[in-house]
Amino acid sequence: MELNGICVITLTPFNDKGNIDEGSLRRLTNFYIDSGVHGMVILGIMGESHKMTDSERSKVLEVTLEETKGRVPVVVGCTAQGTEVAKELSIQAEKSGAHSVMIAAPRNLNNEEMLFKHYAEIAEAISIPIVVQDEPVTTGVKMSPKFLATLADEIENVQYVKLEEAPTTVKTTKILEETSNLQIFGGLGGMYFYEELVRGAKGIMTGFAYPEVLVKTFELYTSGNKNEARKYFYEKLPLIRFEAQLGIGGVTIRKETFKLRNVIDSSHVRHPGAAVDSQTMDELQEIIEFVGLK
Amino acid sequence: MELNGICVITLTPFNDKGNIDEGSLRRLTNFYIDSGVHGMVILGIMGESHKMTDSERSKVLEVTLEETKGRVPVVVGCTAQGTEVAKELSIQAEKSGAHSVMIAAPRNLNNEEMLFKHYAEIAEAISIPIVVQDEPVTTGVKMSPKFLATLADEIENVQYVKLEEAPTTVKTTKILEETSNLQIFGGLGGMYFYEELVRGAKGIMTGFAYPEVLVKTFELYTSGNKNEARKYFYEKLPLIRFEAQLGIGGVTIRKETFKLRNVIDSSHVRHPGAAVDSQTMDELQEIIEFVGLK
Amino acid sequence: MELNGICVITLTPFNDKGNIDEGSLRRLTNFYIDSGVHGMVILGIMGESHKMTDSERSKVLEVTLEETKGRVPVVVGCTAQGTEVAKELSIQAEKSGAHSVMIAAPRNLNNEEMLFKHYAEIAEAISIPIVVQDEPVTTGVKMSPKFLATLADEIENVQYVKLEEAPTTVKTTKILEETSNLQIFGGLGGMYFYEELVRGAKGIMTGFAYPEVLVKTFELYTSGNKNEARKYFYEKLPLIRFEAQLGIGGVTIRKETFKLRNVIDSSHVRHPGAAVDSQTMDELQEIIEFVGLK
Amino acid sequence: MELNGICVITLTPFNDKGNIDEGSLRRLTNFYIDSGVHGMVILGIMGESHKMTDSERSKVLEVTLEETKGRVPVVVGCTAQGTEVAKELSIQAEKSGAHSVMIAAPRNLNNEEMLFKHYAEIAEAISIPIVVQDEPVTTGVKMSPKFLATLADEIENVQYVKLEEAPTTVKTTKILEETSNLQIFGGLGGMYFYEELVRGAKGIMTGFAYPEVLVKTFELYTSGNKNEARKYFYEKLPLIRFEAQLGIGGVTIRKETFKLRNVIDSSHVRHPGAAVDSQTMDELQEIIEFVGLK
Repeated sequence: MELNGICVITLTPFNDKGNIDEGSLRRLTNFYIDSGVHGMVILGIMGESHKMTDSERSKVLEVTLEETKGRVPVVVGCTAQGTEVAKELSIQAEKSGAHSVMIAAPRNLNNEEMLFKHYAEIAEAISIPIVVQDEPVTTGVKMSPKFLATLADEIENVQYVKLEEAPTTVKTTKILEETSNLQIFGGLGGMYFYEELVRGAKGIMTGFAYPEVLVKTFELYTSGNKNEARKYFYEKLPLIRFEAQLGIGGVTIRKETFKLRNVIDSSHVRHPGAAVDSQTMDELQEIIEFVGLK
Repeated sequence: MELNGICVITLTPFNDKGNIDEGSLRRLTNFYIDSGVHGMVILGIMGESHKMTDSERSKVLEVTLEETKGRVPVVVGCTAQGTEVAKELSIQAEKSGAHSVMIAAPRNLNNEEMLFKHYAEIAEAISIPIVVQDEPVTTGVKMSPKFLATLADEIENVQYVKLEEAPTTVKTTKILEETSNLQIFGGLGGMYFYEELVRGAKGIMTGFAYPEVLVKTFELYTSGNKNEARKYFYEKLPLIRFEAQLGIGGVTIRKETFKLRNVIDSSHVRHPGAAVDSQTMDELQEIIEFVGLK
Repeated sequence: MELNGICVITLTPFNDKGNIDEGSLRRLTNFYIDSGVHGMVILGIMGESHKMTDSERSKVLEVTLEETKGRVPVVVGCTAQGTEVAKELSIQAEKSGAHSVMIAAPRNLNNEEMLFKHYAEIAEAISIPIVVQDEPVTTGVKMSPKFLATLADEIENVQYVKLEEAPTTVKTTKILEETSNLQIFGGLGGMYFYEELVRGAKGIMTGFAYPEVLVKTFELYTSGNKNEARKYFYEKLPLIRFEAQLGIGGVTIRKETFKLRNVIDSSHVRHPGAAVDSQTMDELQEIIEFVGLK
Repeated sequence: MELNGICVITLTPFNDKGNIDEGSLRRLTNFYIDSGVHGMVILGIMGESHKMTDSERSKVLEVTLEETKGRVPVVVGCTAQGTEVAKELSIQAEKSGAHSVMIAAPRNLNNEEMLFKHYAEIAEAISIPIVVQDEPVTTGVKMSPKFLATLADEIENVQYVKLEEAPTTVKTTKILEETSNLQIFGGLGGMYFYEELVRGAKGIMTGFAYPEVLVKTFELYTSGNKNEARKYFYEKLPLIRFEAQLGIGGVTIRKETFKLRNVIDSSHVRHPGAAVDSQTMDELQEIIEFVGLK
């Protein structure tokens, strides 16, 4: 089973006291799958995994995989500042039934040799694919198309990359000129999803709270109706763009949205988390209506 | 005369050898004004002023002001790493007939006391308004709503701020809660222009290559047709968003666009400048047609 | 019991396979105490805690506190990207017998209100002191003397700060002008220890591998022999400076040093860790001899 | 004439009103030369050139070269954000009689291809040597030993590099393993000068205000008295280290020092410039006496 299409980066629901809310996590998992997503990426930054303990992470991993019941592949965020920990998390993910692991660079590790070794050692410890998370703003590490290609060409498990360095369109082309061993997923909140597909991306990984919009865009596109895909995607752009403005603050607004839809019980975000003012919520409602979603 | 509406951040045309092309500069100036812009911001980053000598900057200043003939107010970028130089540039701008000067923080000057003094000393040297350029990515300096309000409340010339820290919508509201002495201009390539207006922005400063789109949005909005403004703006969003992805690389694509329109003779960008691949130019053409521009 | 004097930031010994080496950890703990240190800071960056799992951290905590047997106060690094996790780590540290916890800012949290809340919530969860770790290079967060004073004045547990922003001498003075509720510890590898003491620091927290040098400097100084303290400290400066050049790479050279002294069995550093070339080890040996240490 | 030994990075004296003080500039130039320096580096960051206009820079260039009268080679800082400007400054420097130009990377230009082109185009425009300024903290650009070697191997004028990335000792060795076409100069305020020499550096470029200390260290070292060189250097380390703590704030303390010595008339530093508290000046006096300087 290969990853493709819309791999939603999932939220982690907490209750109002800030503890993991298992019921909401199960409902949210089903909601994503019912939206038609082709995969899920759990325990990323959007999932607040950097604000969770190891045992909480294990819990989210177990519950999500149990609830998914193999309906879609699950990618597990296993980024860590040290190789040992990343390996341990990756081994645990594989044992639990993950399809693959997603790994960003350790912070500020601007040293290609050490970075290569990091990925190579993790790869040796597991037999499932690795998604390289290209996340320069958060990690402080830039990965060139050439370096990404080298990772894929020399390390068998490195099969995917999730881009977040703008412009993702141009970077997609440059990577594909370097290698055919890397499947590319777009990012940037979905803002350039149509153009990423045209450039050769296999899909996208993003936390956008209306994954059904990206699903429909993808299905129109891959079934040959490119113009319709583009038209539909551009119609929904005002909303995609609106969420994208909030950066990590997007966690809050997405939780508010899923609470309004009765998918999760609480919109609690762990501290420190950017708050969203009430006017933003009002704007969101207006835009949702404007673009014809409910 | 107060600044409001669309203040286009202008390009500096060079010939193929990399020298300032005065003829193209004059044509471009007229083109902007004919597009209906309400003001011009010259010698910003988009104008490659950081890659020009002092005498080249003076030339652009003189030629633009001469060609403008007072039809629109001209804001002159006078950012410098030292206060003396910023003062000298500002005095020269005032003498040449500038409406106001735009000043970003010296790089990495994360010290409010020293930053305040920087603006205060420049303000004392001139009698025209100052536009504070809030540009955290380029300068490494974050300016809080409270600090921006303090600048405006305590320094008479500080009358405007041009925002570039996302989300500009929320920041607009926060600044207006702190002071009524600061007129706010949006940014981010125009991507949130409609929402910025709703939040209370007076206009926008951006280099978006189809300023007529923002002009029309602004005129619909200020004449009371808010829904039409929104509808029109959202229709053009695919293009606005496309240009915004390119960041500083936007200089190149904008120059290519103005060359295609026969406004400037050469699309030359001074080194180092991000190149744009031919596919990007093709995508641009398609999107321009898609959104109904020529 | 108040913290003062030399609080050594400890290493975490691993065996050649990269697992925690409990025997070496116990020997190293005794070695530090026998060197005369007045306290220990465990699970900091020097202790590679960012490259360890939660359960490994717990193990280091338990073993060290057991071996210390109350002979010196133990400060436990409990920095985390989220407040919940920092609270949980702090509660665990208190239960295990820690004297206090050391907490740096979550990365890039340049928002004083949110940062204050972070410390306030941790403080509420425990009844032992907090050492604020001022670590701008690693965290990307600058804390002004005024903000640090506010933390101490408004949050009872916030009693100490460990400085790492140069110049620590000037910052010490500025903090003491703002508050008398904060005890200051120097840093920067010990390079300005004498001058920090003169400015009013209570001691230092550093991983310098010859803590006895700092102990003697401190004891000479506090017993009134300031000139002798200065003379002795300056004599050893070539070594202090040499270690300081290596930044985080210092972990490797310090482990090599303790291995040569037969304190720990392996100099293994977890990946990614800066390597040290053999010439550096030779230079170290020469300098150790030059300054009259063995 | 090849660069070697102590190339002092010079200050630019201003009068109390902030204008260039030509008389003090001439006296300071002679003072440096009388201290025995083997070369001078003008118009660097320490010389506040980023806070000067183009015409002020020209003036400093002309006056210094005139006063130097060929007694020592003069390296001229010609760093600029754009290649055209760097070329123009370099051509002007060559015409004025500079021995070579020093060029740091344009800010954040983390793209080796574009950076190579930057140096190659400047090199083509002049026939004097280029000193590559490796200055990652200020520029945000890291240059690997391999990339530096490539610059020297492929561009004839690139003959020197001035290191500022710690540890300079290890980087010196790594560069010399890659190429024999690059002469290396140390930095970091002189803190590792002895060790840099041992590693193979040809000398140092630094603004340390007692260049005679480095001159004597260098002369002892190169005349074969290595142990004496080391001993003498270590004796003066308390002072070298003290100045180094102040980073860019060092401009102020160095100007104060030269004013006390009656070399320059005013210690004026252009805004924004880090102030130095009076206690720092007192500490400086004490240390100067302690290490046996006047």
